[in-house]
Amino acid sequence: MEPRVEKTHIDGGDGIRIPVRRVYLSNGDTPLDLYDTSGTQGTDVREGAPDVRTPWIEKRGGVEEHERSKAPAEGLMPESLRRRTALRGKESVTQMYYARQGVVTEEMKFIAAREKMDAEFVRSEVERGRAIIPLNINHPEIEPMIIGRNFLTKINANIGNSAVSSSIDDEVEKMRWATQWGADTVMDLSTGKNIHETREWIIRNSPVPIGTVPLYQAMEKVDGVPEDLTFDIFMETLIEQAEQGVSYFTIHAAVLLRYIPMTADRVTGIVSRGGSIMAKWCLAHHQENFLYTRFREMCEMMRHYDIAFSLGDGLRPGSIADANDEPQFAELRTQGELTKIAWEYDVQVMNEGPGHIPMHQIQENVTKQMEYCDEAPFYTLGPLTTDIAPGYDHITSAIGAAMIGWYGTAMLCYVTPKEHLGLPNRDDVKEGVIAYKVAAHAADLAKQHPGVQEWDDAISRARFEFRWEDQFNLSLDPDTARKYHDETLPSDGAKVAQFCSMCGPKFCSMRITQDIRDYAAEHAVAPEDAVAVGMQEKAAEYRDSRSG
Amino acid sequence: MEPRVEKTHIDGGDGIRIPVRRVYLSNGDTPLDLYDTSGTQGTDVREGAPDVRTPWIEKRGGVEEHERSKAPAEGLMPESLRRRTALRGKESVTQMYYARQGVVTEEMKFIAAREKMDAEFVRSEVERGRAIIPLNINHPEIEPMIIGRNFLTKINANIGNSAVSSSIDDEVEKMRWATQWGADTVMDLSTGKNIHETREWIIRNSPVPIGTVPLYQAMEKVDGVPEDLTFDIFMETLIEQAEQGVSYFTIHAAVLLRYIPMTADRVTGIVSRGGSIMAKWCLAHHQENFLYTRFREMCEMMRHYDIAFSLGDGLRPGSIADANDEPQFAELRTQGELTKIAWEYDVQVMNEGPGHIPMHQIQENVTKQMEYCDEAPFYTLGPLTTDIAPGYDHITSAIGAAMIGWYGTAMLCYVTPKEHLGLPNRDDVKEGVIAYKVAAHAADLAKQHPGVQEWDDAISRARFEFRWEDQFNLSLDPDTARKYHDETLPSDGAKVAQFCSMCGPKFCSMRITQDIRDYAAEHAVAPEDAVAVGMQEKAAEYRDSRSG
Repeated sequence: MEPRVEKTHIDGGDGIRIPVRRVYLSNGDTPLDLYDTSGTQGTDVREGAPDVRTPWIEKRGGVEEHERSKAPAEGLMPESLRRRTALRGKESVTQMYYARQGVVTEEMKFIAAREKMDAEFVRSEVERGRAIIPLNINHPEIEPMIIGRNFLTKINANIGNSAVSSSIDDEVEKMRWATQWGADTVMDLSTGKNIHETREWIIRNSPVPIGTVPLYQAMEKVDGVPEDLTFDIFMETLIEQAEQGVSYFTIHAAVLLRYIPMTADRVTGIVSRGGSIMAKWCLAHHQENFLYTRFREMCEMMRHYDIAFSLGDGLRPGSIADANDEPQFAELRTQGELTKIAWEYDVQVMNEGPGHIPMHQIQENVTKQMEYCDEAPFYTLGPLTTDIAPGYDHITSAIGAAMIGWYGTAMLCYVTPKEHLGLPNRDDVKEGVIAYKVAAHAADLAKQHPGVQEWDDAISRARFEFRWEDQFNLSLDPDTARKYHDETLPSDGAKVAQFCSMCGPKFCSMRITQDIRDYAAEHAVAPEDAVAVGMQEKAAEYRDSRSG
Repeated sequence: MEPRVEKTHIDGGDGIRIPVRRVYLSNGDTPLDLYDTSGTQGTDVREGAPDVRTPWIEKRGGVEEHERSKAPAEGLMPESLRRRTALRGKESVTQMYYARQGVVTEEMKFIAAREKMDAEFVRSEVERGRAIIPLNINHPEIEPMIIGRNFLTKINANIGNSAVSSSIDDEVEKMRWATQWGADTVMDLSTGKNIHETREWIIRNSPVPIGTVPLYQAMEKVDGVPEDLTFDIFMETLIEQAEQGVSYFTIHAAVLLRYIPMTADRVTGIVSRGGSIMAKWCLAHHQENFLYTRFREMCEMMRHYDIAFSLGDGLRPGSIADANDEPQFAELRTQGELTKIAWEYDVQVMNEGPGHIPMHQIQENVTKQMEYCDEAPFYTLGPLTTDIAPGYDHITSAIGAAMIGWYGTAMLCYVTPKEHLGLPNRDDVKEGVIAYKVAAHAADLAKQHPGVQEWDDAISRARFEFRWEDQFNLSLDPDTARKYHDETLPSDGAKVAQFCSMCGPKFCSMRITQDIRDYAAEHAVAPEDAVAVGMQEKAAEYRDSRSG
């Protein structure tokens, strides 16, 4: 059979079509279907991504269309994607709400087929708050996915322009690029010009949920002066983004006034942008964080769109020196308090976590998060396990990410090689995504998640049997695997060779093992008996036969 | 003060000079001295590296010079480096021998100063067999280093040409390049032409111990036919390499005949080259591995040169599917048996370990190795924590390496991005070394090894205070850190800017934190009291003053 890779769909019943990357193997084994996040690639971005969910949303009903509070500016947004109205639930339209009613939504069925789990189990995890399905009703292009520790570990890629550089097109392209390599969600952290339109272009083309930190846009509205922020400006921003289709908001509601002075003695103080902005606001006004005091008003709004909270960790440590300290865990406890409030409103919640943590202090983060936040999904940034390697923080943090994933973190926010140094370009985004796919898969293996090891086994068999094309096609990044192989042995002949460039033809250990195995089979000796049955004679035979 | 980096030496007493990378900081803080493996860089390779140890070896005495059994061929080796004689101890000249006599050698003093430990502690660890100091008396150019879990975690870089590509010059340059970035030892795994001369060029220029797998050269002598190997040919190869100055030999003496059939049902059989060669020999002759049966003869020879065993793990798993299986641990038990035999001869020993291991099965490897091998140092290849990412196995394995280092592995053998695909070039060697320096340092942090966190703290303070040049100079790879920064903000002005390209000038969280801290200091409020003392008034003051 011709080895190849194909993007296709499997039938999930009820008209549900699950995207997969199907790898056809040269030895005729059953093709392997891999989880696929890539959506549509290579099409005109003015067309947007296909609508997956509208029929499901309409079928459930309970929503009404309304004029948007803000629509994208003409010129900056193609007419084909420019929407003047948005949907809003008359009451709760969250997946948690449906789960609590005992309803298995189409989104849950989609996820069940995608994750090879039972749909009722998906529902029960969402009901319990142990998993979330981020999908604003205004983002019907989403191919539903779930974030929870009893499912595959997910990764998030951050994109976003800044005051210093980059454009709308760049950001849409980065989103596509990130999903091509496996990003399960994308956060748009833009802070510069055209923030509204950039986000809308991204959402209209995205097959994955888009998260934001609404505070960044709110800050634009007060000319970058934290003290001038108000809850009304913030809420207006939330609604604007709700209408666009953002699926989760990072909200730094747990940075309390009394925690701020605890950070003054840190080596690196407050490193979260959102955390520092709210800290400055609190100190300037000597008032409690309005995101905390008016948290219920946000819950009340978000339940009408099905937007999830990603409760920010504004006081996360910014260095190994500050790991697992008092302000960090004080904030985490407040995140837990807020989690339970959001649940009162059927609003889905995950909790953000650090940051910079040495390996021996990682597990405590997960243990405390599960305890304080009643097992709501944990979503961590790395953590970086050392500070000494700027330029390689995708690696310092992939180590921590793999471990924290194993311990039970549901989603890992990627870190690129540019972390602490500059803005990631296209190559950096790919490096970050791949490092985090590695971490997430390593975590799933360590958790012994059902079916996960099949992928490793398929590639190991291909490797052992010198099925080079299969090995490339099964790789997380087939392009790079093929390129690296071809640097040393470029000819097509080398791709069917029973050896590789590392050892050359003479010393190939895999070939020798195959000889051993063939020999055992030929002589009909069960492996465990091979020695016992007196192989002296056979050995002599074998020695003689090798000249033939 | 002008920030800069300097290679210099610190005085260890008794004429001992310890190499360090000294980082002078722009804020006038005490310069930071970092462990340095780089030896001499940029000099003519025909001069060789400086002689460090000859006076110490001569002072101890008990050695005699003899004609070498094999000297490098004229033409392939520069006359300046061509040695016709070698040293040999009349009796034991191993560091373990001296340690057992209660002697603190100069090498131990050097290491004590280098590791900031007590010299008597160094001696006691070597006596106990818990640490080794690999340094053949025929490699006087070594700057002594130690491998043991109570010292800094070390890394090894493999180099070596193969039948398919590369030249002598390339390999010498790769050795220098690897030590420049931090390789603590280098293994020369050459298998092609000029194997003897390649190795000798490398040794004469190397500041770090060189390890080999002598079996590869022995195989050249039998034209690549494993069945034709004999102990005499093998021993002749060992002596040839002993005279050149190799400091440790990987020897697959624990691959026993009865373990071989256990591997037939594996997904990836035997993946170690040495392991598969010995397996083939054993099966062909139906005899026990001669490296096992004649192990004592090797010990007897090696004690005269102070060469350490690196007991190979020929049956290590080559895939996640085969991790921690019966043949792997059977071999490990035999490694333990051989460790104790070597110790009878005062020969230093470390044990090689896997390989491919999912995270949840890593710790068992260390626990068993310590138990079976009586705490002799463990030296692992990775392990890779998943098989799905060829092209990124420096990352899949850095995860495993960091963890196994934390659990107590003393040295981590690097893996490059080309693993399983092709031969590493210069860039790949650097990528591999850096990924493993990250893993080793992360492990040392997690072990809370004394003094290790100073490096992280120094770079974190520099980062927080926008001392960009200090941050670059303190980086594991200053070139890359500087380059990445300059891609977004290339001007010199940006290197003193109080912001960076990630957030731009307005939203900088570090600047905001500094404001908070300044505010607290200015108002003489202890952080813990800041809230309690009634800051309402101060807050108003602060709000007003920000316009000024």
